[in-house]
Amino acid sequence: MKFTCSQSDLNANLSLVRSAVPNRPTHPILGNVLFVADTEKGLISLTAFDLSLGIRTSFSANVEEDGSITLAAKLLNDIVSRLPEGEITITLEEEDDGEEEQSKVTIESVSGRFQLRGMKADDFPELPTIENVEPVRLPVSALTEGLRGSLFAASTDETKQVLTGVHLSGLQDSLEFAATDGHRLAVVQTPTQQTTEEEDSTPQPESNLEGFAITIPAKALRELERIMTMHKETEAVALYVDEAQVIFELGSQRLTSRKLEGAYPNYEQLIPHQFSRSATLERKRLLSSLERVALLADQKNNLVKFTLAEEKGQLILSVESQDLGSARESMDAQISGESGEIAFNVKYLMDGLKALGAAEIQMQLNQEKQPVIFTPLGGLKMTYLVMPVQIKD
Amino acid sequence: MKFTCSQSDLNANLSLVRSAVPNRPTHPILGNVLFVADTEKGLISLTAFDLSLGIRTSFSANVEEDGSITLAAKLLNDIVSRLPEGEITITLEEEDDGEEEQSKVTIESVSGRFQLRGMKADDFPELPTIENVEPVRLPVSALTEGLRGSLFAASTDETKQVLTGVHLSGLQDSLEFAATDGHRLAVVQTPTQQTTEEEDSTPQPESNLEGFAITIPAKALRELERIMTMHKETEAVALYVDEAQVIFELGSQRLTSRKLEGAYPNYEQLIPHQFSRSATLERKRLLSSLERVALLADQKNNLVKFTLAEEKGQLILSVESQDLGSARESMDAQISGESGEIAFNVKYLMDGLKALGAAEIQMQLNQEKQPVIFTPLGGLKMTYLVMPVQIKD
Repeated sequence: MKFTCSQSDLNANLSLVRSAVPNRPTHPILGNVLFVADTEKGLISLTAFDLSLGIRTSFSANVEEDGSITLAAKLLNDIVSRLPEGEITITLEEEDDGEEEQSKVTIESVSGRFQLRGMKADDFPELPTIENVEPVRLPVSALTEGLRGSLFAASTDETKQVLTGVHLSGLQDSLEFAATDGHRLAVVQTPTQQTTEEEDSTPQPESNLEGFAITIPAKALRELERIMTMHKETEAVALYVDEAQVIFELGSQRLTSRKLEGAYPNYEQLIPHQFSRSATLERKRLLSSLERVALLADQKNNLVKFTLAEEKGQLILSVESQDLGSARESMDAQISGESGEIAFNVKYLMDGLKALGAAEIQMQLNQEKQPVIFTPLGGLKMTYLVMPVQIKD
Repeated sequence: MKFTCSQSDLNANLSLVRSAVPNRPTHPILGNVLFVADTEKGLISLTAFDLSLGIRTSFSANVEEDGSITLAAKLLNDIVSRLPEGEITITLEEEDDGEEEQSKVTIESVSGRFQLRGMKADDFPELPTIENVEPVRLPVSALTEGLRGSLFAASTDETKQVLTGVHLSGLQDSLEFAATDGHRLAVVQTPTQQTTEEEDSTPQPESNLEGFAITIPAKALRELERIMTMHKETEAVALYVDEAQVIFELGSQRLTSRKLEGAYPNYEQLIPHQFSRSATLERKRLLSSLERVALLADQKNNLVKFTLAEEKGQLILSVESQDLGSARESMDAQISGESGEIAFNVKYLMDGLKALGAAEIQMQLNQEKQPVIFTPLGGLKMTYLVMPVQIKD
């Protein structure tokens, strides 16, 4: 194997696959990145795979000799990111005779020469493939919007299985994203048809998504989010699904992930559709007030109390801490329905407010123990449901 | 106590004293910052003190009522930094009747009201004072330069006592800064007379520094460095010294620190003045090469080998790691004296190269076990001594 490429290409592509390299690999080779050099196509492909999440990317290079090898991902990334701009030549020094497990790889740049020990490509696990399946095509814009509004609400508790993922389901012209950790729920609908103002834009191929439903680990979707930032909003992601796996393809990048098994909770039935009270609020103002009063919230229950003062047209936030003191902030609010009090975990509110995006939001509620809904006024089609916390007397 | 000030003044001054607040205070009140409000001067002073390092700062405010109180430094800093710009009013709600240990303090801004529990000012330890001593006056520029070139070389091992500080000593027209951890030594001389091109600048009062010698904890000097960044280079720091303490005064800021006891090593005798070999090197090029090859250096001894190739006019850096592989970089160098090899701890070299500052540096050496000297060509008057490491065969 021998090829020459630019430092910036190699560096960008190594960074891209790095997140599929486990920090503590269960087997040494999983800490490596797989290089495959193809003279015919003039391409280098890089693959990292932690047995659940896999990322493959390829880029153009001057390939002199076919071949493949795996190299320590972190070390290589550290070296390449520090090399000066310009050409880098990577050579597999001695072809393996089948007995030695390690081979020498030389990395040459204008500044000097590194020699690393590589491990045989044969020992690197195969990325899952999905054959004979028509992909679903989703615009980058729709996926990006949907993930931004839902990923944060997924559970980080690995024992919660299906709740550690985001549930994607197909509606007639849109894709629905849902994530919940049992305390709050975020649901976003994004259109799957591109609405673009450019006249010469090619309409995206229509995928029939009705009935489509799948739960994908949040970790894999965070990486997908990162990969999408390097692409245009008008590009399309091809999504291949089989019983156990999903594959996202976008330009020369491919991300594979296992699916999460088990039925996703029927969240639709949790969302109330009739409300006795509502308040329209300035999102940033509410968020910055919450960030301040949260400093005094008890670390145990993180409780913040909302007082709706209908006559005054004000929302009052208050926090009491046994040890530290108390905080009280108020802001203008358009309130309809009766005045009253309700309490929340302040962290759940802050997470949701960051994702809602719009300048103004609406809070809709019934009695003080029933779920509360936050929706943006304009922009994203998102519903954020938070369970209130009981106020202690 | 009651006063009104701007959010930005309060925030800046709280941040300034924060570093003298210990993370884990041995007594609760040391986690607090002392507020003293003075109606006559229209000033608020803030003090933090961890019993070794103390910082006091003051700023103008509209003081309605004299008084003093202490408040949890971290919490207050977190709150104030998040308050919107504008006026803040702080009121000590109920004067202490002598029995209660805690008092209520209200912090009001346009956005709302925080109420915190304060602890009595009487219980806050007094900052050391130094009476009837003429201060030494040092230009900010000289102190800043001296500290930048020496602080990094002080030992971080608390058992090494006097080596955890920087030794300052007075020469005829300059101040010498020295720091060593036993493996390397940094010495900087900075002029104490301002050389400024502004014609209307007032000459600094001349302090006779000959014979002056003192060792100050690196931690205190790092804070002094930070305080000085907020002042002009042409300002002067007044340094008061007694048997146990030092006080630095700069504008409305004051930093007190204990001195480090014990004789500082006679480092001057360690520095060789005759050399059989030397090399002139481009500093940034050497530093970036070292940063790359260091990635392969054995974590135990961090060894990098320098090969001086006089005929080729090159310096070759090489690193070998049993586990990872090897690295070799070369760069142009003006070499005088014989070719040969010498090895260093790569981390010590990188630290020193960052501080040396000049575009070109000179490395001067004798035999492979004798100390090596690095000096900048032009700019700072600095000597960086590193002990070489024995090369294993």
